Amino acid sequence: MTPRHPDRDQIRIESVLSALGSRVRLDAVRVLDAGGEHNCGSLLGILGVTAKSTMTHHWRVLRESGVIRQRPSGRENLLSLRREDLDARYPGLLDAVLTGALRDDTDDAATSPAPARR
Amino acid sequence: MTPRHPDRDQIRIESVLSALGSRVRLDAVRVLDAGGEHNCGSLLGILGVTAKSTMTHHWRVLRESGVIRQRPSGRENLLSLRREDLDARYPGLLDAVLTGALRDDTDDAATSPAPARR
Repeated sequence: MTPRHPDRDQIRIESVLSALGSRVRLDAVRVLDAGGEHNCGSLLGILGVTAKSTMTHHWRVLRESGVIRQRPSGRENLLSLRREDLDARYPGLLDAVLTGALRDDTDDAATSPAPARR
Repeated sequence: MTPRHPDRDQIRIESVLSALGSRVRLDAVRVLDAGGEHNCGSLLGILGVTAKSTMTHHWRVLRESGVIRQRPSGRENLLSLRREDLDARYPGLLDAVLTGALRDDTDDAATSPAPARR
């Protein structure tokens, strides 16, 4: 069964912002921004997340807000970013968010103790 | 007592997005974007919100994420948008969000039944 997705004109900005307003969901979107479809398992591996059940909730939030598309494939779901829809509806938003996340990373790296190097 | 505000470099994008990811908070930010300081009472009036206690929570979310500044003045707090900080840290983000909210309004107006006019 294909899960429910909002059409492009049903997407609302407060739902998109709320969906992106979580570190793990934002990280998932950053991975998906590379393009193409990811299965949940590979995405969890990239994110370093082991709690698959928690992520089921996060995928739903991202899907119901219109940020990602979930496509059933065998026993899995394939996930992709709805970049075209988001860019058409909210020009510049996703780019500003992704650039902002990078900016935070830079600041976090500058303030965190450097990892020991061998 | 002046409530706690994050410094500009302590602001994090997921907190900003989460703070903006609520209709009433986003509406408040849209009002504050006109500039200057608003007291809570006048802002509630503009927003058509009567539940002052609920809004206390919303002001805190907006303040702690770095979106607004709260300045005590007598028995009230004056609220203002931290646009300079947000624009410096996340260029284009706030403009994309506010433009997006306008876009939603246009779509909502187009799909809602027209109010009776006399």
